[in-house]
Amino acid sequence: MASAEFWYEFASTYSYPAALRVAALAERRGVSLIWRPFLLGPIFMAQGWRDSPFNIYPAKGRYMWRDLERTCAAMGVPLKRPEPFPQPSLLAARIALVLEGDERAEFSRKVFVAEFGQGLPIGDRATLGALLTACGVDPATALERAESEANKARLKAECARAVQIGIIGAPCLVTVDGEVFWGNDRLEQGLDWAAAGGLDAVP
Amino acid sequence: MASAEFWYEFASTYSYPAALRVAALAERRGVSLIWRPFLLGPIFMAQGWRDSPFNIYPAKGRYMWRDLERTCAAMGVPLKRPEPFPQPSLLAARIALVLEGDERAEFSRKVFVAEFGQGLPIGDRATLGALLTACGVDPATALERAESEANKARLKAECARAVQIGIIGAPCLVTVDGEVFWGNDRLEQGLDWAAAGGLDAVP
Repeated sequence: MASAEFWYEFASTYSYPAALRVAALAERRGVSLIWRPFLLGPIFMAQGWRDSPFNIYPAKGRYMWRDLERTCAAMGVPLKRPEPFPQPSLLAARIALVLEGDERAEFSRKVFVAEFGQGLPIGDRATLGALLTACGVDPATALERAESEANKARLKAECARAVQIGIIGAPCLVTVDGEVFWGNDRLEQGLDWAAAGGLDAVP
Repeated sequence: MASAEFWYEFASTYSYPAALRVAALAERRGVSLIWRPFLLGPIFMAQGWRDSPFNIYPAKGRYMWRDLERTCAAMGVPLKRPEPFPQPSLLAARIALVLEGDERAEFSRKVFVAEFGQGLPIGDRATLGALLTACGVDPATALERAESEANKARLKAECARAVQIGIIGAPCLVTVDGEVFWGNDRLEQGLDWAAAGGLDAVP
């Protein structure tokens, strides 16, 4: 069965619609999906950015929020801008990493809906704990594992892997032959590539 | 008849596939298209960038060139990276602005194909003169009009208008109700919006 990786960052606006769309798109193409949470912070820092480019460049930010409004409206999903933006996403990413398979996907979708659909603070332990409970996961256990040194190191390794792959933003669809498709609007293209088995097979 | 504006920059890589695709996409939707050449330079300068962001941020540049390769391969059009990149696009933009309607569109497509399909230097008067001739336009007359003070001022006004609209990159599809759709991969969405008559009409 063809497979692909879905790389996402909880603070990333376009990762929100992508997280809601990607599973159905992958299933329709018979592509098995691996959800890979990571952090854009280290990548942005390496570019010299100490904040989201959407804040550093206001015109870019204005465009993005309007574009996201249209995207969410077309999907029929709510959009509520969290304050501050970007939200601290470290803890959510650590938690997602200790969950596996469908549980990770479900928790991740719930984080995105809380953050960008309801404008809730996702750096907050109580918010994340409630989302874990809603997934049928014991919050205390998950939080303890999330904050273990081993898991912190694992997330760092994931971020290093993202840089190595050539990921420059989120979300990204990454295929087994190493192709990176960046953006919510490129999920279909990346999944088509994965389903077709790579470069030579794509018409 | 519904109409929309196609804003493009001759130095912009993604404007190349967009320029080759947009006319057929618009026609299929019954949208009349106005081609509006402009310069990204002043917009980038305002962000503090003295070069293409694809050169300033090498990882972003690597991603873009690979993505463009895939895009061109899927369209069946050649891609040859011009050196240096970006190419000086001022003269080409001035010339495009003195042409009208189909002539402007045809000349613009020929410039993009020369630049990114054949890797030719489009800052070169001889190259541009040959493309004008191929469009059935007298090069001497067009160049003289292109370099008139009135036309230089007109291009400056176009760039100011682009900033005012909220354009932050190229290409962009801009609808009559002021919506901006940025990117070669957003032409369809922008044209659908234009054809539907704006926000309230889009399903």
